[in-house]
Amino acid sequence: MRERALIDNLLRPLARHPAARGFRHDAAVLSPPVGRDMVFTHDVLVSGIHYLASDPPEDIAWKLVAVNLSDLAATGARPLGLLLALGLSGAEDEQWVRSFVRGLDGSLERWDVALLGGDTVSGLGRAVLGLTAVGEIEPGQALGRTGARPGDIVYVTGSIGDAGLGLDIARGKAPPDETLLRRYRRPEPRLAAGLALALLATASLDVSDGLLIDAERLAHASEVAVSIELPLVPLSRPAEARTPATNDGLLARATSGDDYELLFTAGPDRTGDVQSLSRSLGLRITRVGAVAEGSGLQVLGLGNERLTPPRLGWEH
Amino acid sequence: MRERALIDNLLRPLARHPAARGFRHDAAVLSPPVGRDMVFTHDVLVSGIHYLASDPPEDIAWKLVAVNLSDLAATGARPLGLLLALGLSGAEDEQWVRSFVRGLDGSLERWDVALLGGDTVSGLGRAVLGLTAVGEIEPGQALGRTGARPGDIVYVTGSIGDAGLGLDIARGKAPPDETLLRRYRRPEPRLAAGLALALLATASLDVSDGLLIDAERLAHASEVAVSIELPLVPLSRPAEARTPATNDGLLARATSGDDYELLFTAGPDRTGDVQSLSRSLGLRITRVGAVAEGSGLQVLGLGNERLTPPRLGWEH
Repeated sequence: MRERALIDNLLRPLARHPAARGFRHDAAVLSPPVGRDMVFTHDVLVSGIHYLASDPPEDIAWKLVAVNLSDLAATGARPLGLLLALGLSGAEDEQWVRSFVRGLDGSLERWDVALLGGDTVSGLGRAVLGLTAVGEIEPGQALGRTGARPGDIVYVTGSIGDAGLGLDIARGKAPPDETLLRRYRRPEPRLAAGLALALLATASLDVSDGLLIDAERLAHASEVAVSIELPLVPLSRPAEARTPATNDGLLARATSGDDYELLFTAGPDRTGDVQSLSRSLGLRITRVGAVAEGSGLQVLGLGNERLTPPRLGWEH
Repeated sequence: MRERALIDNLLRPLARHPAARGFRHDAAVLSPPVGRDMVFTHDVLVSGIHYLASDPPEDIAWKLVAVNLSDLAATGARPLGLLLALGLSGAEDEQWVRSFVRGLDGSLERWDVALLGGDTVSGLGRAVLGLTAVGEIEPGQALGRTGARPGDIVYVTGSIGDAGLGLDIARGKAPPDETLLRRYRRPEPRLAAGLALALLATASLDVSDGLLIDAERLAHASEVAVSIELPLVPLSRPAEARTPATNDGLLARATSGDDYELLFTAGPDRTGDVQSLSRSLGLRITRVGAVAEGSGLQVLGLGNERLTPPRLGWEH
């Protein structure tokens, strides 16, 4: 399929926002909201590395959007627009692309975000899917990884480890479960939580590579010590049913990645606000650890003993 | 080389703009210029398709920046920032990456643009290099491909065909010439011209795939007929020396691509302004054709006869 035909026939209907200028020009032009800062992120998904080549193309598109919006969520930003870098190999035929575009369309609708433009290339050895997400935020409110202070409490949204179990299911290595599989294939960026956390959290990042490795990154960036208590790590009901109540069982959940939950810190005086937020969003928010003076990550097991896990998560 | 070590050691020094937030967070945060529109583009370069694997990595980085800034130039925008999607294969070792980052650094300095963030992946079959460029422009001034009107004159900046000859040289298929090779490896986005054209041109795009195919795209987008007179196509002195004074010779120049000059249209009443602009920038601007009612591209040869070229340029 030639690039031009692809763009004309399949992607053009997604150029709904005037900023996209119908994908007819060399660049998109967006009038930014007055008095707001702009937030930018770009994440790449590679076939066989970040998703399975056998994953449904609609889900791959959804995930590409979700992982990028998740970075906006971790910053406390509201999404505005996306630029797509669609790099195809010989493995993706026109049906694959049609299905991918359908998934993309659905995620644009779901998250109320505009496709602004991008580029398509083909002839790659494997698909390489890049996405730039553009968001907006009140000046001075952007969250990051560096604000955690000794005495802060460490929280995580939602549940941890579902996507890792979903990946096992997708690989045929574990018995089917629709909820877990969906958590792997259709992650939900915690945008509403992120918007509220901008006024509440001291530091934040999204859990993409594993709760423990991302907690270690937060400790490193904030130049503090972070401890995570494994027994506190929130599991969904189907994940709990598959997780032995052992340190190894919990470590598997806390290192499996692809959760796209928000890991954040807040002062001990904000406990009530965190609880209110959880209630108002209908989203579980769980205390999983604490911040102290020092450096590095401490992992505490079932008897509160200090563990030294062989790995903390994914390093790409 | 692990991603984290790569980012820490090589890319972090390029996080000079506060908006990049030291590359320590999930997203960059930029305060946009007050009262301006934001302009976005994303172009991907693939090893072996858009550049030669044997090209010097510094030049590849330069080109990646230049082709994206060229899209901003065609829009009339001023560049603000870039997001890099660095996708590496086994062929790029640490020395390659160091050299690439050096080239990137040099191009950031040269075009006074900030690296805001991005992503790195490895393990690809061939390198896939994506870049998002963010720019700003006065609201309502953005140029595009759709504004050409019957009666307009078609112009092009600089000279055409040098980069195609440079590619032949890089491939060892033509005798060396430093000027032509440099035009292939280190294209110069016409940013200053673009800024001025925002107040002058009716339509504009950059010549990336060949003068003729890009002229045909302009005609298509503007729903007009565009004629290009081959004898008017501006050649540099070294290109002229290698170009037979035949229709085929001129067609080779006008279809070879990678020029990154601006092709634009302006009303016949603006001839003086175009000449002034050319003088003030010290940049050749040449009338190469005309816009008429109708559709499609007309190519006129040496005797003003209508040609039907077998190809108009590159289609990726």
